[in-house]
Amino acid sequence: MSEITVHAPATVANLVCGFDVLGLCLSEPFDTMRVRLINEKKVVIAPGGSFGLPVDPALNTAGAPLIAMLEEIDDEIGFEVNIVKNIKPGSGIGSSAASAAGAVVAANKLLNNKFDRQDLVRFGMFGEKVASGVKHADNIAPCIYGGVTLIRSIFPLDIVSIPSPDLHVALVHPQIEVRTSDAREILRKEVLLKDAIRQWGNIAGLVAGFMKNDYALIGRSLEDFIIEPVRSMLIPGFDEVKRRCKEAGALGGGISGSGPSIFMLCSERKTANAVETEMRSIYDRMGLPYHTYVTAVNADGVRVLGS
Amino acid sequence: MSEITVHAPATVANLVCGFDVLGLCLSEPFDTMRVRLINEKKVVIAPGGSFGLPVDPALNTAGAPLIAMLEEIDDEIGFEVNIVKNIKPGSGIGSSAASAAGAVVAANKLLNNKFDRQDLVRFGMFGEKVASGVKHADNIAPCIYGGVTLIRSIFPLDIVSIPSPDLHVALVHPQIEVRTSDAREILRKEVLLKDAIRQWGNIAGLVAGFMKNDYALIGRSLEDFIIEPVRSMLIPGFDEVKRRCKEAGALGGGISGSGPSIFMLCSERKTANAVETEMRSIYDRMGLPYHTYVTAVNADGVRVLGS
Repeated sequence: MSEITVHAPATVANLVCGFDVLGLCLSEPFDTMRVRLINEKKVVIAPGGSFGLPVDPALNTAGAPLIAMLEEIDDEIGFEVNIVKNIKPGSGIGSSAASAAGAVVAANKLLNNKFDRQDLVRFGMFGEKVASGVKHADNIAPCIYGGVTLIRSIFPLDIVSIPSPDLHVALVHPQIEVRTSDAREILRKEVLLKDAIRQWGNIAGLVAGFMKNDYALIGRSLEDFIIEPVRSMLIPGFDEVKRRCKEAGALGGGISGSGPSIFMLCSERKTANAVETEMRSIYDRMGLPYHTYVTAVNADGVRVLGS
Repeated sequence: MSEITVHAPATVANLVCGFDVLGLCLSEPFDTMRVRLINEKKVVIAPGGSFGLPVDPALNTAGAPLIAMLEEIDDEIGFEVNIVKNIKPGSGIGSSAASAAGAVVAANKLLNNKFDRQDLVRFGMFGEKVASGVKHADNIAPCIYGGVTLIRSIFPLDIVSIPSPDLHVALVHPQIEVRTSDAREILRKEVLLKDAIRQWGNIAGLVAGFMKNDYALIGRSLEDFIIEPVRSMLIPGFDEVKRRCKEAGALGGGISGSGPSIFMLCSERKTANAVETEMRSIYDRMGLPYHTYVTAVNADGVRVLGS
């Protein structure tokens, strides 16, 4: 096998109360990536794709992880990568992570699974470093592992899969730009202990809710008194979206990653459809361009289509 | 039935990374309490017991919860309480909570379970207010629910039982006084966001570890970069106890409640015995009086012995 195609899905990082440590994998949207084994120790990013992403592999979110992977391989091999990108960069649903995760999963398959999933996350984080200047795994890990994923620690890397019940997701991407680095800079470096205590009560409740299939507990735990009050100011209509989506039956939700997308978790597909209708009506009224998705939590992560 | 006897067990609050939100119930030590129904609307605390605790019911940790309970009962009834106290006040293993929880569980049994467990926790917290000036539930809730308990929120009260594998516990109580109020005052009101993130990664890992029966994950998650570095300074020998107990096979552990007791979780009884030996040798060498226990997590909470 010398060539392989994968679907690399979008992901939601943070999950409201799990800033920097929780993420989940979506069924849609996804990028389609083709990776081909070549006989020279280098990474080639095929021009094309979309969104004018850099083709210098060291500056490309799919290229940098593959360069890191090649450094741990003795053989004289390399990879050529072809990306058809559907996940818009800057949308807050793990566009850079999808490229990184898709590339390393496909390459590893071509290498007969030489590396384990934790290695792949380690390589993938080089893509996040290229994209935002910081190595983080809360999109990469769920994209590779599937489902809901806890990154208990980055150094050393400690990834824990969190079983969850069926979850449907409504997502809206208001077409404004929020740079991850800006979204990070506006956060205070210190937080009140009493707020931190509420936050760790909520993340413990969220993990327990997922593992007990307790939708009501999941909903009650989707609270954030630290990050959301600051970051949501960058997203027009945020408070109204959240309120009306919950009135329409969403369990809860909030900012996806560093935004501007907003996600809402639902126990049923039809609720997610109703929630999407609310999202559309709010941004239609505001006259702000947007894109919505109704999808589900994807238990499998990057999907290998075959050679 | 007009009289009932219960065993009200010790508890460990905080569980290292779960400050103010997690607790677990122990099999031993426990207080023995007898509660009798009387025909007058009042609470009587029988003198005796031990440790010279106040007999004014409004100032007694068993009395105050019963007064709160009586306020929600129309009938002309009251309770007489007899306490044989084995859990030393100020030891950091939920002495006040045991009295409060034992009293309300016994009284509720005499009332044919008029109240649910969450009501009982709500009443019990009046005992904590008497003891430390603050209503908290991280000892009361595990004492009433048994096992490992998450208090996701106090206002409104939201208690979640966390399933866990068999856990054995070694405990040492160095005989020094640490007042809960003092232990709280030395904490900083603000914490670094990056430390808070590590803490919520750990509590999420701990909850997942309990629910997945993953002892190694439980051990890795028993880290605290916020409270322990400050409070442990009040406990002579803390760092050495922790290090040597882990070398002896403990999964991990730390300060029980606000101290001075130190607890260590172990996957097997024989490890807990070895850990106790380490604890004894350290305090023997230091010449500091202490008491140790080797016990287990108690899934049932307050035990009703019958009338």
